[in-house]
Amino acid sequence: MFHNKPISITPIGYVVTQAKGSEVRDKNIISQIIIYNKFIEALNCLEEFSHLFILFWLNKISTKDLPLKVHPRGRKELPLVGVFATRSMFRPNPIGLTIVKLIKVEKNVLSVRGLDAFNLSPVLDIKPYDFWDKNKEISVPKWWQSLEKEK
Amino acid sequence: MFHNKPISITPIGYVVTQAKGSEVRDKNIISQIIIYNKFIEALNCLEEFSHLFILFWLNKISTKDLPLKVHPRGRKELPLVGVFATRSMFRPNPIGLTIVKLIKVEKNVLSVRGLDAFNLSPVLDIKPYDFWDKNKEISVPKWWQSLEKEK
Repeated sequence: MFHNKPISITPIGYVVTQAKGSEVRDKNIISQIIIYNKFIEALNCLEEFSHLFILFWLNKISTKDLPLKVHPRGRKELPLVGVFATRSMFRPNPIGLTIVKLIKVEKNVLSVRGLDAFNLSPVLDIKPYDFWDKNKEISVPKWWQSLEKEK
Repeated sequence: MFHNKPISITPIGYVVTQAKGSEVRDKNIISQIIIYNKFIEALNCLEEFSHLFILFWLNKISTKDLPLKVHPRGRKELPLVGVFATRSMFRPNPIGLTIVKLIKVEKNVLSVRGLDAFNLSPVLDIKPYDFWDKNKEISVPKWWQSLEKEK
């Protein structure tokens, strides 16, 4: 079927961060996103939004022989659940999705807070986060709530 | 640079919807997402979340000769802004990102409300939407607010 064939995506930029290993999960960390010059015009007016979705590629993940179920955060006391029910990096298409605070835009460089991407991760897309993304009455599993309390 | 090379993504499933043209923007529309059988285990426990992020491919978009600035929603009275400051379909990597309400999961078929994807759009990833995605103090441009009021 035509909708089953591989899709080719070309990065629009990449991440620069000093954070290493689990440091990238620190929600206060400030990273830079370097956008390739050919896309600089596409950043126009971006600074009017406080928060952005960053889509990036988890380029350290091999997609070979991935398990389809994981313990959230690798925590054995939490139930084994499908990877689509988690934000695990280990997923069939390892696309990272994180909502960040935009600090500033200088030419082709964005400074953002809270991006949990490793240094040199390819960036695939940037979208503004708006009230339609936020105003939802949501519910989550009990195991998720136990993770939230730890923060 | 290694982070600049094209990335190959293989869809995990596809969208089935009766909606045509601008009908896909109806936030009450119910669509199905058919997940390929090889990924069925990855759906385990998904039904415990009320809302999901759906990442899909806007496969009707040609990425040739795209403008880098657009009027939001094609509305000439709104400012011309960079595509990364909009949710326009016309973007360098036409990845759609929509938060949907999960209605039910039956084997490899998800029924969801509010997915603005065309019939047979390839689905790239599914992630749970949680309180960390929601609890943000955000601000948006004036032109965005004028669109919200219309809804």
